This record gives sequence, structure tokens and C-alpha cells, in this order.
Amino acid sequence: MEFDLNKTRQVLERTPRVLEDLLSGHTDEWIMNNEGEDTWSPYDIVGHLIHGEHTDWMGRLDSILNKEDKRFVPFDRDAMFKESDRKSLQQLLSEFKELRKKNLQKLSGLNLTDDDLNKIGIHPEFGEVTLTQLLSTWTVHDLTHIAQITRVMANQYKQAIGPWIKYFRVLQ
Amino acid sequence: MEFDLNKTRQVLERTPRVLEDLLSGHTDEWIMNNEGEDTWSPYDIVGHLIHGEHTDWMGRLDSILNKEDKRFVPFDRDAMFKESDRKSLQQLLSEFKELRKKNLQKLSGLNLTDDDLNKIGIHPEFGEVTLTQLLSTWTVHDLTHIAQITRVMANQYKQAIGPWIKYFRVLQ
Repeated sequence: MEFDLNKTRQVLERTPRVLEDLLSGHTDEWIMNNEGEDTWSPYDIVGHLIHGEHTDWMGRLDSILNKEDKRFVPFDRDAMFKESDRKSLQQLLSEFKELRKKNLQKLSGLNLTDDDLNKIGIHPEFGEVTLTQLLSTWTVHDLTHIAQITRVMANQYKQAIGPWIKYFRVLQ
Repeated sequence: MEFDLNKTRQVLERTPRVLEDLLSGHTDEWIMNNEGEDTWSPYDIVGHLIHGEHTDWMGRLDSILNKEDKRFVPFDRDAMFKESDRKSLQQLLSEFKELRKKNLQKLSGLNLTDDDLNKIGIHPEFGEVTLTQLLSTWTVHDLTHIAQITRVMANQYKQAIGPWIKYFRVLQ
């Protein structure tokens, strides 16, 4: 499938509601349990998505379109362990919803042209990347973190399902 | 995490809304594309979940609690390719929502005791399984199919993300 700005927005604008429906109102075990040492809980993942809205996607878009220095600031993958501190999941979900809404409004306001979408930034590891690739990655990042959240939750019943574990490769 | 009937219901009752939010109103490419030959699209997966509501979970629960013959009927994993025929995604989402609601109402009406939860059915491959294991598997089945849907969608942008593919193990 080719990149398409509308199809990209279709996914990005749905994510806050999907997270709300998946996670809101659950008992703590579904939200705070992870998959073992150095792994993330659904709560951690929502914090990570918030940090991305603050610093990653729109900041890099800005570097591509407006900055003379096209080098991206490296993304801090552990930032949420400080930033989410003492916030409730409900607070994080609301914060993410607000930030995503504002970012998508900004994105609309830019009226990106095909020319813009081909512009280049410098990724710390990959070197030259296009705005199209950045926006596609934002989308894939949402989707794969939803997949991760549901896998982490499924993992909590790894013992409880008994022999059925055989049918769930993703839990093995 | 130990099995708990309320925590199980918490997940099962959310799935119809999560699917609606993830999939409703998308262009066909997000819904109908799969991951290549002999793989499932999000549309196929919703059909598979519907078939499960009709024949799998509550039927097996009934075998465990009420039937003399405790052997489960094998589950047809390809049934949805006939049953979903010509239905719109919106029809399938509504159908799933209704069926899940009815099944959860039935489940509540049973007022399952600890004694019930330890009762046994005969799985075609695994032999003896408990009602607890069946209900846990229903939950894990929902969660892993949501994970699968988002992975299939993410895969549609596998090319579009360019070098970022390196960070998404699940797409490789």
C-alpha cells in the first residue's frame, strides 16, 4: 500500500479512542503488569506515546520543513518512567488525547504538498529520511504499540489458559 | 495473574468497541488487505471472531456444564470465508457486538461457582481442559486477534517507512 496522507490521518486520529476503550476502567493488574524485567506495561506504553507527541513526530517534522539544521534530536525511549510518575492512567489517556488532537490540527494547518512530503531530515542512525517515511512511521508506531499492549495483557493469562498456549505463538 | 471471572469479563465486554474504533469508516485498503497468500485481513478476523461467538466459546461451555458427552466440536478456522460473504464490515461489526452482548448476558445468568469453573471438557487435541482454561482462552483469543489486526494494518506501510523497518521486529 502506498503512503497516503488521509489514510495516515485515519489511523492517527483513532488511536486515543482505541486506547481509552482498551484500557480505561480496568483493574490495575491489566494495566500495570508487564512481561517481566525490563519490559513495559500498558501504562508505560501510554506514557511512551505521550512522550512521542511532545518531542518526536512533530519536532522532527519541524526539522524537515523549517529548520536549517535537519538533524533529528534522538528520541528518549525511557522518558516516560520519569514523566508519568504518579499520574493515573486516566490522566495519561486524557493527556494523550489532547496532544494528539493538537498535533493533528497542526498537521492539517500545514496543507502539506507532494513537494513537502519528499523533503528530507537526518535521522541519528539512518541518515536521510523523507517526511513521507516519518509520517508512515508515526502510523506504524501507533499500530504496533496497540499490538504490544494487547500482547502484554494476553500474557497475563499465559498460565491460566493451560494447554491452549500451543495455539498462541506470540505468547511463547 | 490468576484467572478472575470479573477481570475476564472486563476484557470480553470491551472488544466490540475496540474493533469498532479501530476499523469503522476506514478505506478498504486498511480493512481488506492481508499479509500475503493464506493470511487474514482485518475483515477476515472480524468474521472469525463472529464464528467463535456462534459456535466455539459458549458451545464448549455448554458441553462442560450440561452435556453428558464432554467432547468439544472441533472449531472451523475457515468458516468466515463462507459466512462473511458479501457482508459489509459495518454489518460484521454490528453482528459481533450483538452476539458478544448476548453471550455475556448468558454467562452472567449462569452465576458460575468455583465448582463450575473447575469442571472439565474434552478438547479434540488437548484432552481434559477446565472451564477456567476455556474462559481464559476466550480472553486471550480476543486480545491476540486485536494484536493481529493492528499488525496486519502496520504491515501495509512496511515499504512506506523505509529504513525505520529496522525498529519494528514484528514486521520483519
